[in-house]
Amino acid sequence: MARIFSGIQPSGELHIGNYLGAVKNWVQLQATYPGAIYCVVDYHAITGSYDPAVLRARRWGMAKSLLAAGIDPAQAVLFMQSDVPEHTELSWIFTTITPLGDLERQTQFKDKSSKMESIPAGLLMYPVLQSADILLYRADSIPVGEDQIQHLELARDTARKFNAKFGVEYFPEPKPLLTPTRRIMGLDGNAKMSKSLGNTIGLLETDEEIWQKLRPAMTDPQRVRKSDPGRPEVCNIYQLHKAFNDEATVSNVAQQCSTAGWGCMDCKKVLLEGMVQELTPIRRRSAELDAEPQRVLDALADGGRAARGIAQQTIAEVRDIMGLGSTGLAG
Amino acid sequence: MARIFSGIQPSGELHIGNYLGAVKNWVQLQATYPGAIYCVVDYHAITGSYDPAVLRARRWGMAKSLLAAGIDPAQAVLFMQSDVPEHTELSWIFTTITPLGDLERQTQFKDKSSKMESIPAGLLMYPVLQSADILLYRADSIPVGEDQIQHLELARDTARKFNAKFGVEYFPEPKPLLTPTRRIMGLDGNAKMSKSLGNTIGLLETDEEIWQKLRPAMTDPQRVRKSDPGRPEVCNIYQLHKAFNDEATVSNVAQQCSTAGWGCMDCKKVLLEGMVQELTPIRRRSAELDAEPQRVLDALADGGRAARGIAQQTIAEVRDIMGLGSTGLAG
Repeated sequence: MARIFSGIQPSGELHIGNYLGAVKNWVQLQATYPGAIYCVVDYHAITGSYDPAVLRARRWGMAKSLLAAGIDPAQAVLFMQSDVPEHTELSWIFTTITPLGDLERQTQFKDKSSKMESIPAGLLMYPVLQSADILLYRADSIPVGEDQIQHLELARDTARKFNAKFGVEYFPEPKPLLTPTRRIMGLDGNAKMSKSLGNTIGLLETDEEIWQKLRPAMTDPQRVRKSDPGRPEVCNIYQLHKAFNDEATVSNVAQQCSTAGWGCMDCKKVLLEGMVQELTPIRRRSAELDAEPQRVLDALADGGRAARGIAQQTIAEVRDIMGLGSTGLAG
Repeated sequence: MARIFSGIQPSGELHIGNYLGAVKNWVQLQATYPGAIYCVVDYHAITGSYDPAVLRARRWGMAKSLLAAGIDPAQAVLFMQSDVPEHTELSWIFTTITPLGDLERQTQFKDKSSKMESIPAGLLMYPVLQSADILLYRADSIPVGEDQIQHLELARDTARKFNAKFGVEYFPEPKPLLTPTRRIMGLDGNAKMSKSLGNTIGLLETDEEIWQKLRPAMTDPQRVRKSDPGRPEVCNIYQLHKAFNDEATVSNVAQQCSTAGWGCMDCKKVLLEGMVQELTPIRRRSAELDAEPQRVLDALADGGRAARGIAQQTIAEVRDIMGLGSTGLAG
């Protein structure tokens, strides 16, 4: 049976961008892949400057909203990366077999470091820790977006290098499991939805808050008057309809838009209905968790224990392969 | 009370170079500094290519000969670095606050990497793990040789950077405790005694083995005939007399050499006597440990537990400072 692993940054409560782009898929996969491993990668969140209190709140927001979104601790393993130190242990091991040049060539490193005066070593080592995240669980299927394929390639490389160096077939080469949902644009229609750009709708916002964000949201820029026919294929709102409404509604939306049957406000109201339907149970679960935060802590503790059990076994085996560990030490 | 930490590579059984250059001093310090922490740094030994079976044997040889040399598990904490994953955890944390440029400027990195076609990332990160080794125990006094002062400087820098970034006075700046014994030259008289140069005398060798190595060992190269007076100050054998014989013998050696009273063989026989006297109890303890290898394993297990207890407390406190960990997570 394939084992899947996926990680998410502790960026606070989910917004509909990372929900539709990743987490909704995780929820679906947990039924198909028993013991799917989902990790809040907080050891990846410390490479820049940040406020510890904000990070703490964001780790909490992410954990709580993942549970609210439907990650089920009875089916999947949900945990905080920093609760399993074996991530960093395997990362150290991998630094010893990863050529510096391969890291310096990573696109994300080049993009980010070119804007910095002083580059923290952690920025260069980031993908090594990512490889460790995946290979620690000997996961073979990794739900990723297209923008993460380069990092997965490094993990595949690392698995091959380790196996070749020590003459073993220990680590499987993880394969991408491409997330079916498309990348969600922000409300400005200009860039991927992202908290740092302030163009998001939070997963836990109220109907009214969502409506206040949908109202001014960008649609087809060429549709100036209500009587102008719109072009659904260029409209971000239409993309959201596809994510939140059924096929019959979506094709009605396309027709009403392109014939100027509905104005953009009419269209957005129909979108709001679809969103409310999907988000209501999520908000209800979130409210329950707010009332009983211990449930989140318990889920993370259970998940951390389960993850650590697998991680410790991998590390013990890896250390034996490498001539570390105490097996056979006395000769 | 100051806490001392020192590490040694798992290079197999000790030779008289690393015994006199470091370990003899460790043995003396363990009485003065209760709970002195001594670590076999096996996670530092994997950055190049190596044979796992050889590494395993060398880790064992080092652990056994440290105990034979007089490291006393009742006074000091002796353990294998890879038994305490918190070393790598703190190392990851430190990569996030260490500028890449500081690492690229390290002399050892420049020397070693300039000879390599493909440079493993671990070579660049090596001093970050060294800083973690020291600061994990919040050690404030580090027995070092002069050649290690640059690495200690990085650890001091890292302590300052962490404290400044998070507005705490958490890590002490470790101070060097310069080892009083001088650097021991190899039997060829050309370079520091080192196993890789094949110019060593093992700490556990027999009298006969030692004599076979002392006989041809380099002395004053200008002393060609027995009747030529020698120059003790340029003779490596005279340096060894200072390490193994008492002051009266040493000054007699100097006089007999510089007046050509003794030939070099006479002088080496007196050295052998001094060495046999110092090494006999060490070889006896080693033989005892060979007969009861479980005692070595037990000492390492106890040491690992003790080290880990301290390490886990540091990591818990560090994670709290950084907004990681579960303290206060639920707000």
